[in-house]
Amino acid sequence: MTTTASILEMVNSPEDLRKLNMEELNLLADEMRELIINKVNTIGGHLGPNLGIAEATIALHYVFNSPVDKFVFDISHQCYPHKIITGRKEGFTNPENYHKYTGFTAPEESAHDIFKIGHTSTSVSLATGLAKARDLTGGKENIIALIGDGSLTGGEALEGLNNAAVLNSNFIIVLNDNDMSIAENQGGICEMLTELREHNGKVENNFFKALGFDYIYVDKGNDVETLINVFQKVKDIDHPIVVHIHTLKGKGYKPAEINKEPFHWTLPGFMGAKDNQIPANYEDYNSVTKDYLLNKLNEGMPIVAMNAATPGVFGFDKEFRNKMGSHYIDVGIAEQQAVAMASGLAKEGAKPVLCVMSSFIQRTYDQLSQDLALNNSPATILIYWGGISEADCTHLCTFDISMISNIPNMVYLAPTCKEEYLKMLDWSVKQNEHPVVIRVPFTMTYMGYEDTTDYSVINKYKMIEQGNEIAILGLGAFFENAKTLKQAIKNELGIDATLINPRFITGIDKEMMNSLKSNHKLVITLEDGELDGGFGEKISRFYGDSDMKVLNYGSFKEFTDRVPISELYSRYRLTPELILEDIKRVLK
Amino acid sequence: MTTTASILEMVNSPEDLRKLNMEELNLLADEMRELIINKVNTIGGHLGPNLGIAEATIALHYVFNSPVDKFVFDISHQCYPHKIITGRKEGFTNPENYHKYTGFTAPEESAHDIFKIGHTSTSVSLATGLAKARDLTGGKENIIALIGDGSLTGGEALEGLNNAAVLNSNFIIVLNDNDMSIAENQGGICEMLTELREHNGKVENNFFKALGFDYIYVDKGNDVETLINVFQKVKDIDHPIVVHIHTLKGKGYKPAEINKEPFHWTLPGFMGAKDNQIPANYEDYNSVTKDYLLNKLNEGMPIVAMNAATPGVFGFDKEFRNKMGSHYIDVGIAEQQAVAMASGLAKEGAKPVLCVMSSFIQRTYDQLSQDLALNNSPATILIYWGGISEADCTHLCTFDISMISNIPNMVYLAPTCKEEYLKMLDWSVKQNEHPVVIRVPFTMTYMGYEDTTDYSVINKYKMIEQGNEIAILGLGAFFENAKTLKQAIKNELGIDATLINPRFITGIDKEMMNSLKSNHKLVITLEDGELDGGFGEKISRFYGDSDMKVLNYGSFKEFTDRVPISELYSRYRLTPELILEDIKRVLK
Repeated sequence: MTTTASILEMVNSPEDLRKLNMEELNLLADEMRELIINKVNTIGGHLGPNLGIAEATIALHYVFNSPVDKFVFDISHQCYPHKIITGRKEGFTNPENYHKYTGFTAPEESAHDIFKIGHTSTSVSLATGLAKARDLTGGKENIIALIGDGSLTGGEALEGLNNAAVLNSNFIIVLNDNDMSIAENQGGICEMLTELREHNGKVENNFFKALGFDYIYVDKGNDVETLINVFQKVKDIDHPIVVHIHTLKGKGYKPAEINKEPFHWTLPGFMGAKDNQIPANYEDYNSVTKDYLLNKLNEGMPIVAMNAATPGVFGFDKEFRNKMGSHYIDVGIAEQQAVAMASGLAKEGAKPVLCVMSSFIQRTYDQLSQDLALNNSPATILIYWGGISEADCTHLCTFDISMISNIPNMVYLAPTCKEEYLKMLDWSVKQNEHPVVIRVPFTMTYMGYEDTTDYSVINKYKMIEQGNEIAILGLGAFFENAKTLKQAIKNELGIDATLINPRFITGIDKEMMNSLKSNHKLVITLEDGELDGGFGEKISRFYGDSDMKVLNYGSFKEFTDRVPISELYSRYRLTPELILEDIKRVLK
Repeated sequence: MTTTASILEMVNSPEDLRKLNMEELNLLADEMRELIINKVNTIGGHLGPNLGIAEATIALHYVFNSPVDKFVFDISHQCYPHKIITGRKEGFTNPENYHKYTGFTAPEESAHDIFKIGHTSTSVSLATGLAKARDLTGGKENIIALIGDGSLTGGEALEGLNNAAVLNSNFIIVLNDNDMSIAENQGGICEMLTELREHNGKVENNFFKALGFDYIYVDKGNDVETLINVFQKVKDIDHPIVVHIHTLKGKGYKPAEINKEPFHWTLPGFMGAKDNQIPANYEDYNSVTKDYLLNKLNEGMPIVAMNAATPGVFGFDKEFRNKMGSHYIDVGIAEQQAVAMASGLAKEGAKPVLCVMSSFIQRTYDQLSQDLALNNSPATILIYWGGISEADCTHLCTFDISMISNIPNMVYLAPTCKEEYLKMLDWSVKQNEHPVVIRVPFTMTYMGYEDTTDYSVINKYKMIEQGNEIAILGLGAFFENAKTLKQAIKNELGIDATLINPRFITGIDKEMMNSLKSNHKLVITLEDGELDGGFGEKISRFYGDSDMKVLNYGSFKEFTDRVPISELYSRYRLTPELILEDIKRVLK
């Protein structure tokens, strides 16, 4: 046992912190950081946010009495130090336990975690509920909402602030300002925070005070003693206050301090590794999308690449952003704004292409419906990472088809390969009739020849191979599974199944579906997402009044949590073997 | 022709305004108000917002050059004066044309209307898109976003402000502050605006300046000349500015000036009529809900009645709000906050009952999913007005089932009558396992005896009458239609159809559905909402691998716009005659 681990050995719960002196507490912060760096280097995860919040977490647990006093962590991707302090350090000290706890707060792990949280900008709103319940039931505990400067730009956070400001009782917002969202911050709020930092919290027009909050600025947000003193002052306060602490994102790991964006969340293996150089000729959906956008820009098209605070997901690195110049917009963590702004851009003849992760498009149902679809604004939205995965329960990407495809006027497309994707994208940015969403596959495949489809003929499926008895509709990324299934059916049953690539998620090719009735008994749908409200159910409805049998395959309506993909595929009967079992039962 | 109509006669387009002097312009405002009062008294509509904005609309059209310069009206429920000025006055002067134009902006009516808008807090975001497209394409026009003080509390508006503040080009926000949302305003933003009004725009901490906006306060927001001078000053400005105008909601109609809340939107016939006295013993879902909530409060339950700015829809009048006291929360126009706060309340043992109109729950998909359902917080949400209607395209209420019911963990209930509704509500507020949504029917019906169902047994349908051959599942309000259909089937085909009340929207009673297979050939589902992603499709999927035929009835995936209900029912084949036609075809 090295001496550097000696402080942490003494800490098994928050009360142990109070037995330590200031020097030991600061050392503890360093020890926790070392654990976090090693863990993230081994299994990946959120690095920068956790390194920066170590001292603040120690100070919070030193001063407040969790879990009687309640912390709500925004996104909760900065909860690693909190987990270490609240009895879960073995998830960080022992590599065998690295997967034992989630990277987010999880009430089933500990009473110190109040909510499962993984999306941004929710902490203040959730905490107002805790505070109001406390007031109605005669409680006296402190309610503390932590929120980052990046999350502050999300509408839900701002709605929360508006309500929190008038609570008339204890409510403490710890604003963890590390001058970064995932990428650089954007917008008026960012500039307002910069001004506060630059003037040690003293400015002419204080945003928080304007809303009615009491306000304290703490420049030394990585100094335990300073933070303890401040938190002791605000503990048991009888009104809402914003404690604005200035912290260093990535603290303790130089590359992360300097280069904050790539170390916000990182894959394993960053230590000692060379720069993650992608070969020059490497091609994936990120690279072909970027190339397409830059080409259109160079051709003089008023194309606009947009995202909401997560450019890295789409490979929108600094070089790309610089090349796009004023044709690149990061709206910050503000997906509602992104969709509405895209609608406005498209209405005026610009060609917005908004990139969003499947899980985060969930924040925009009404904007998709009212701002975009009702207005038939010809904007393009690219949905990334849609599909069944081993993700944490807060970042599942199985719900986008169900959410988007039941909104009128939307054209939701599911390409199966690079050629289709590029043709769809090109059609979308050149047309002026429809709001178009394209579900970008994760893995690139190739058709081998140019796609010449005219996608303005809406809801026309593509007949790949005309067979009989059984027809398989393989949607998007699951077209590959459909091909495999077709072969398995041939091998096992000797049937030449019909293979169809629907391409359009949002409508039924009635002509083709009707034509199947003459020589097919069974239609099988495969989709990489939730069955409920999805694509397959519409096919089931279509054939409801006929003799055609239908089997729909996709994921169940459930929040899964880091479940191995093989287990999910077997649970959802998504393997050729299990589907064949079902086919034999149905056709017997 | 009376002399009071003489000014309006001269105004057929915005440029005609510039031929009038100030006195005439002020008279014009009065004339427009008279028309609006008479029209709303005849067909109903938004009264207060339109009366208050008359002068500002005149001044805007006097100064700016619409449609080259572009106005985006938030919600656009205050666009009546705009419509009168922009060539649509015959929709107000001639009662025969009262229904010719919608009560909202509509691009198909006029080039002066940029977007279809009916939900709140969208104007700034939409307008940022217009402004950015202008900048990219070398345009020079003014972009003007109008927004009310009430709408300012919605997250999308705040996301919009954050982005608008850094536009570096012409962007004019006209903040129409009439000191009222639909009901009283709520929150820190409201108090901030009050302070600005009380100090003529000069305060210590200016919210808008903090965000980086230029800012002008105009106290005389109902004086044409003042407004024209201000708008002339800001016209062609090269940066974002907030023009904060103080107006009188309901101006020109005393009862609406004094009693702002009921005259925000009103049914026809308010003039000369006595107070709309509801008889003391009158019972509807509003009254029984209020009685239930007050009873629980009196019993000492930590019940909380919640809404987002529309208490009137639920009959939450001032008397009720006063009685509920601190157990009543209006979060303002902030549905995301409402759902998240309800989750927090429920987590801490309070019993939130959040009331929301179907059309507005759309603003909370991610909050329902992440803040509520993922956390299994036992909050209760009551959805009002869900169903097919003659509503404007911006206020359709047919999408809630599709949106809510495909989210995991949610229990969405469809009561068919008062007794079921109260039993479900009572079960919901007393249980601690599920987030529960109840779809409150519009018209009250009675079962005639107490409902003794234990709703903790999830997804158990109620067999009303066991028949054979055909089974009808009548969901919620459409249970009545199912009864009628059953009788029609008996009369026409001599078949005793099985009648089922599903009650649970979010799950299938597999046991009962399987049992139907033995002596039924056809299952019919009836639901008062969109088919796509709805209840019926899940029944179709369930029977996909069997010989059971299924017919699903509900509305299509479309935005309808004030279409007569009889036309919609016939389009959707929702009449017994049309369904019988389908049955005969399927069973032949």
